[in-house]
Amino acid sequence: MPIKYCNQCGASTVIKIPHGDNLPRAVCEGCGFIQYENPRVIVGCIAEWEDKILLCKRAIEPRLGYWTLPAGFLENNETSQEGALRETLEEANARATIIAPFSLIDIPHINQIYLLYRAQLANASFSTTFESSEVALFNETTLPWDEIAFAAIKKSLEHYFDDKRKDIFTLHVETINVSTQKK
Amino acid sequence: MPIKYCNQCGASTVIKIPHGDNLPRAVCEGCGFIQYENPRVIVGCIAEWEDKILLCKRAIEPRLGYWTLPAGFLENNETSQEGALRETLEEANARATIIAPFSLIDIPHINQIYLLYRAQLANASFSTTFESSEVALFNETTLPWDEIAFAAIKKSLEHYFDDKRKDIFTLHVETINVSTQKK
Repeated sequence: MPIKYCNQCGASTVIKIPHGDNLPRAVCEGCGFIQYENPRVIVGCIAEWEDKILLCKRAIEPRLGYWTLPAGFLENNETSQEGALRETLEEANARATIIAPFSLIDIPHINQIYLLYRAQLANASFSTTFESSEVALFNETTLPWDEIAFAAIKKSLEHYFDDKRKDIFTLHVETINVSTQKK
Repeated sequence: MPIKYCNQCGASTVIKIPHGDNLPRAVCEGCGFIQYENPRVIVGCIAEWEDKILLCKRAIEPRLGYWTLPAGFLENNETSQEGALRETLEEANARATIIAPFSLIDIPHINQIYLLYRAQLANASFSTTFESSEVALFNETTLPWDEIAFAAIKKSLEHYFDDKRKDIFTLHVETINVSTQKK
């Protein structure tokens, strides 16, 4: 949604390049305040229990009815690991501990950057939530590969089971662009 | 700066927890639009040339006169690697290529997350810029350790030279909180 008004004084904004900058920004015609827009970080967990991982079936839009890893926007005043564990609790009622960062995926055309951590579930306790109509453990064979909600999640799951077969987990860094996502 | 007005319609906002959410947000009293505020990503490079790395002396606030790695806010429509290389060009007039992610540092009390890449300078060509009053190559001995601008940069430099001594570079994941930063 393009910015039209100053969120500090309520006057109209114009799109222009501020002095000392090189990109157009929403600048207030009244008080001069600049509203910057930057990519958002999505944090989440690949949470392991025995030989399986936890997935959630989305009960809300976007991608209602598709499966995803517990993940969501990083909030102010939390670390990326705290955010990943919070999303796991909020979306799956599951408690986990972080093992290591697993995937770092830029999606520049929608201004998102995913940071997913491998994590260990504290126990086999999880349940549906406001955001998830089903929560379940899957291995590579049982996972609903054709019903994954988001490209970055599918990429991360593919890398996860590749690594699991080799028994060596590394950080996967990549970019999803418009053409990748259409595949 | 707390949000006071809707940037879509100019009406006043109130801070409240929207339906289906669990955190207070700036919600428009007129059109209902929600302005979310999330952490920003800072991307940059540890750019190597022979046995040295490139640092910039800040010509602008904050921390004017202190040294830093070329780094800045990730912009919309770019990947974190593109952003890291753009900052290296903008702040040091230097071209580089990415080697690997090197440090991932959460700073939750100021809503920032640093993602610094190790990079290789294309050549020994660099110069001062609008943002940098000096640009220079340093090794561990010559580096101005007491004049580093930001805690996340200093941490990353310490890890870099530790790794360099071992000749094994890994990803460093950590958090800087208020008490860490006061050290």
